[in-house]
Amino acid sequence: MKTFFYPRSMVVVGASPTKQNLGHLILINNVQRGCTVRLYGVGSEEGEIAGVHVYRNVADLPEVPDLALFIIPAAAIPDQLEECGKLGIRRVVIESGGFSEFSREKSNALEEKLLDIAACHDIRFIGPNCIGAVNYDLNLLMPFLLYKNTLPGGRVGIISQSGGIGHYYLEHLPENSVRPGKMVSIGNKLQIDETDFLEYFLEDEHTDQVIIYLEGFKRGRDFFHTALSASKPVILHKANRNPQSALIARSHSAALSASDDVVDGLCRQAAIIRVEDDEEAIRSVKILQQPLMRGRRIAVLSRSGGHAVISADACSQYGFELVPFPDSFFDKLDTLYRQRVIARQNPLDLGEIFDYRIYGRILEETLKLDCVDGVLFNHIYQSHYEAEMSRTFLGELDGLIRKYNKPVAVAAITDVAETTELVKNYPVYASPLAAIKALNASAAYARQRERRDTRGRSRTFSFVLPEAHARLDRLIREKRHPLADECIDLLTAAGLSFVRSWKISEADDLDGLNITFPVAVKLLSSEASHKSDVGGVRLNLTDRISLMRALAEIRISVKEKFPNVSVEGFLVQEMVSEGLECFVGGRQDPVFGPVVVAGVGGIFLEIFRNSAVRIAPVTPSEALDMLQELRSWPILQGSRGQAPRDVEALSDLICRVAALLNAVPQIAEIDLNPVFVHAAGQGISLADARILIKDDNVPG
Amino acid sequence: MKTFFYPRSMVVVGASPTKQNLGHLILINNVQRGCTVRLYGVGSEEGEIAGVHVYRNVADLPEVPDLALFIIPAAAIPDQLEECGKLGIRRVVIESGGFSEFSREKSNALEEKLLDIAACHDIRFIGPNCIGAVNYDLNLLMPFLLYKNTLPGGRVGIISQSGGIGHYYLEHLPENSVRPGKMVSIGNKLQIDETDFLEYFLEDEHTDQVIIYLEGFKRGRDFFHTALSASKPVILHKANRNPQSALIARSHSAALSASDDVVDGLCRQAAIIRVEDDEEAIRSVKILQQPLMRGRRIAVLSRSGGHAVISADACSQYGFELVPFPDSFFDKLDTLYRQRVIARQNPLDLGEIFDYRIYGRILEETLKLDCVDGVLFNHIYQSHYEAEMSRTFLGELDGLIRKYNKPVAVAAITDVAETTELVKNYPVYASPLAAIKALNASAAYARQRERRDTRGRSRTFSFVLPEAHARLDRLIREKRHPLADECIDLLTAAGLSFVRSWKISEADDLDGLNITFPVAVKLLSSEASHKSDVGGVRLNLTDRISLMRALAEIRISVKEKFPNVSVEGFLVQEMVSEGLECFVGGRQDPVFGPVVVAGVGGIFLEIFRNSAVRIAPVTPSEALDMLQELRSWPILQGSRGQAPRDVEALSDLICRVAALLNAVPQIAEIDLNPVFVHAAGQGISLADARILIKDDNVPG
Repeated sequence: MKTFFYPRSMVVVGASPTKQNLGHLILINNVQRGCTVRLYGVGSEEGEIAGVHVYRNVADLPEVPDLALFIIPAAAIPDQLEECGKLGIRRVVIESGGFSEFSREKSNALEEKLLDIAACHDIRFIGPNCIGAVNYDLNLLMPFLLYKNTLPGGRVGIISQSGGIGHYYLEHLPENSVRPGKMVSIGNKLQIDETDFLEYFLEDEHTDQVIIYLEGFKRGRDFFHTALSASKPVILHKANRNPQSALIARSHSAALSASDDVVDGLCRQAAIIRVEDDEEAIRSVKILQQPLMRGRRIAVLSRSGGHAVISADACSQYGFELVPFPDSFFDKLDTLYRQRVIARQNPLDLGEIFDYRIYGRILEETLKLDCVDGVLFNHIYQSHYEAEMSRTFLGELDGLIRKYNKPVAVAAITDVAETTELVKNYPVYASPLAAIKALNASAAYARQRERRDTRGRSRTFSFVLPEAHARLDRLIREKRHPLADECIDLLTAAGLSFVRSWKISEADDLDGLNITFPVAVKLLSSEASHKSDVGGVRLNLTDRISLMRALAEIRISVKEKFPNVSVEGFLVQEMVSEGLECFVGGRQDPVFGPVVVAGVGGIFLEIFRNSAVRIAPVTPSEALDMLQELRSWPILQGSRGQAPRDVEALSDLICRVAALLNAVPQIAEIDLNPVFVHAAGQGISLADARILIKDDNVPG
Repeated sequence: MKTFFYPRSMVVVGASPTKQNLGHLILINNVQRGCTVRLYGVGSEEGEIAGVHVYRNVADLPEVPDLALFIIPAAAIPDQLEECGKLGIRRVVIESGGFSEFSREKSNALEEKLLDIAACHDIRFIGPNCIGAVNYDLNLLMPFLLYKNTLPGGRVGIISQSGGIGHYYLEHLPENSVRPGKMVSIGNKLQIDETDFLEYFLEDEHTDQVIIYLEGFKRGRDFFHTALSASKPVILHKANRNPQSALIARSHSAALSASDDVVDGLCRQAAIIRVEDDEEAIRSVKILQQPLMRGRRIAVLSRSGGHAVISADACSQYGFELVPFPDSFFDKLDTLYRQRVIARQNPLDLGEIFDYRIYGRILEETLKLDCVDGVLFNHIYQSHYEAEMSRTFLGELDGLIRKYNKPVAVAAITDVAETTELVKNYPVYASPLAAIKALNASAAYARQRERRDTRGRSRTFSFVLPEAHARLDRLIREKRHPLADECIDLLTAAGLSFVRSWKISEADDLDGLNITFPVAVKLLSSEASHKSDVGGVRLNLTDRISLMRALAEIRISVKEKFPNVSVEGFLVQEMVSEGLECFVGGRQDPVFGPVVVAGVGGIFLEIFRNSAVRIAPVTPSEALDMLQELRSWPILQGSRGQAPRDVEALSDLICRVAALLNAVPQIAEIDLNPVFVHAAGQGISLADARILIKDDNVPG
């Protein structure tokens, strides 16, 4: 990967010395900004561009360059790639568009060809349909966009599926006091993808933080594992979040959608900072250049009362605690100035103090407090009076921040021109809300990192795998999904416990069974995977007579209303009379492989869409974190005088289901719903299970 | 009110001709900006400030000015106010602080004195603790802050409880292409308040929109009624939303908190645009200078594929529909340019077109489409190439917007300096997300206005009020809240229907009662308002023996565990076996008077805090809107194959409860929970009711 950012020599294939084409522009850019890489051009005409010689063929070059950049029509690329390969060029950037982003099919003949040629010659390539890489330290600029300012020494790496967005970050980070170092636009990522570059940036000693813009994942599971061990902050803007976006993403970068809730889950699991937009990404990168906010106890110092109120609102909204300041703090402040006694509270209204040295002293006293994890300073002023003093004050912030190892976010509330100028050079935000959002990013990341780094190991379960595999293979041969009783048998073999149940074919089979009432009865039929839809479920049957009647009723009802549904038998099960209805399930995600899902169920599930997802397998602490993430977590903890639920047993079930999905890839989907969770220590009861088989021959 | 913005003459009391005090600054400001009001100063020394004569006493002035502005120590104000009153000055602005914002008591002797003097002399005054009013048309500038640019002709009025925030809007609106006209800072609003100024701005022919920043409401109900009939957009930033903020708001502008959910409800009811921060306020004001977006069908035109994807995400997030463009539209586009065929979809990726005239034509064709309510245009460009062309294009937008009567929001994705410059002069936003948020403000307001303007009238109910009043007055005399059976009697008298119930003192009373099982039984005791907390409720009793046993058990249990709770009898009620559990209630809000609350109940209520509030009384359409606002609305409509619920009956109950609270002010609180809502047409069942009496002598 390193060669893409540090080639000794590069040839731009598709540069015209006589007319202003994109290849021409790329060479001009590099020469004008002083690129330290040896440059060559190849085009249909021989000549010179800004002192760079343009040859007719790659073979004519005086050396075999480390890297070739293609900006020629798509159809011409295979031949050029072949030629480069033969010459021994091993790194290629294909910027040209015209590939799978223009087709709706999954595979594209031209792309297949490129992959074949590259494999044959051991070529690694970026693209197609991208703007290549940028390394400000060498002034290496592959994009066909003009660059004005390229400062060396930046320590942020950017990976972008969209060239436009990657370029946007290069332009906008410096306006927010953050210097970018390297950027790569990966386009259709036919061969090299985001995970390759993430690995590189995590290793790269010149990179401290990584921003990623993606419209889809290429190797979701590898991406997850790479992020899981990242010691640098990874900030992810994953766009293309819903069906409305999918079509446009497909035609832009050939991206396929990933399920958005899985992306949320993996970010939480791997401590990736998921952001909603570029503004949030930049805010996060900026605050993460300061020490992390290690808790949520905040101090607000404010030069305006109104903005103190707004800040207090924002603190509540983002879950910060405005800790009371100790008396000793105010006593100390009293020694600093003798003006009007300020109200002894947090936010501290600086009110009538107009002395910047005192601001600095108060800020330092605040940072000294053990009860404070971070500070918001509302700096409202009129620039024509205080611009100079303000800059002196802000210039001293960094020292205080390092000394006390806590973040300080300043909201600069002044005229727009002044704020814009300050934001470029200091840890300053345009409003208290923006500053609070930044601190929230820091505190959330600190918490996420800690959680990730103490996640522990996933348990190993002694599943009877050969038997499970055999059963599943038989179902695949029979081209059908398992019936309810078979699901229960399968999962029982995998170590899950269900309520007592009896399988019968007809009412007569009840004779001789020692059934303990009350029971439920469920239709067994391969045509009716949702039993309740065809009236195939009866609950709360208190005696044998009611049960017999229920069996007869189901038979008649199905026959009359759903003549296509065959009655293959019935499952009689003990009723579970109490317990909180939850659900646990999982599936083979097409992008991320096995994932596990859990939530609190009932009718509200559909309305509030309240579930947690993780990449399987999961550790016990991750399973617990899934439950804590739920908005209905207070119910599990016990609310309104109800007993706390057996969260441990539920977490254990999550781990088991995750491990099973991970171990048995023939299972496309498991759905345990409801899972009755009893009071703490009382365990859970499983009554119902649905399993779908993963095979194209088994109808969905 | 008008005199505060259009005085013919003004005296600044507290201006020193020899030293730079705040009064001095105010006079300088006005003279330098060319204020057209006749100005005078009053201070302890006679002299001149920038040509304005400073007298020793108000009585020395050559005329009785229309308005006096006080910027002197709080303690000196009563005497000065008295003197002004005697002289015949009828409008006063008190900017000085040092009043109730420094005390934690509700009343403040100094403030009381000001009110008395003002009443005696028929003086209307703003403040104290404020920065007064601004009218750019006269260059009238009361704040003690320096003003650089004051353009006449602005049509936005600003009312701010905080001077800092009011001033912020004056500075920042012009940076967003919006001209402010008038601003008033109301501070502690001891006499004149936000409602007075809202009334004024709604009448003022120079004002088109009103921005309000509040930390508390003075006359909540009047504010509501004024807003309800507003024909101009009212944008409200209500800060001080939670207990964390309350303390700081109190010490800043002496504001008392209002319940935030009531503020949400009244905004929805009165079509007030409630915003989270100043950024959202400015965005809303800006987009509302264009025609309203009358639906949610959006077209996105994008010069960058990545930003098209991001825009599609944002459209989904904010509930916009990316309508498919008709074939005729693409056929038309084909006649406009002959470059690469663009993908026939919405967002439309403008891709390789680099011709501004074509952008204009495509935009116009898009605006012509009946299926499009508004447009987002993603304008990504490099300013050093296209700054001029870009401005020409943007300059033509306004004509198109007016011609087709639809809003167009442009996201300018270019360097920060260029964006900042554009945002000042054109309907341009800094990102697709910001543009979508703006369009959302427009569409939401259009919908809210329509809903408000078709709300209809509230029904009149023939409550037997004299009887209700008599019963409540008796309870007040007895210093107690009604017991469950009394609540039911009271509400039955008011026209509500409850399930059959029988009041008994002891088990023997059951003899002779024709009870229809199953029943529930509830303890009657004035010491136990929450019956279930003391074990005083038994449900699902299927026969007389179970009922007798339950009565005995409750007696024993209460006696053993809650010896202070007296058993005053029992209420036996028919069990309601089905129906969705909802709740309806209401209370006398200290700020807004009677309000009504409704929601879907059960254990999830507490977790998801999902309820709707409105100012009572409500019309049938407002009651229905309350239910539609609920996240659980789909449950009421019927989901997962369940029958739709009797929404009409539930709405009717909401109207009745609201009307009752409005008619009977002795009721502090009504709580009907649960309300069982049956399938559509089947009505509702009420079993339980709680009423609290409003009287300081009745223990809460």
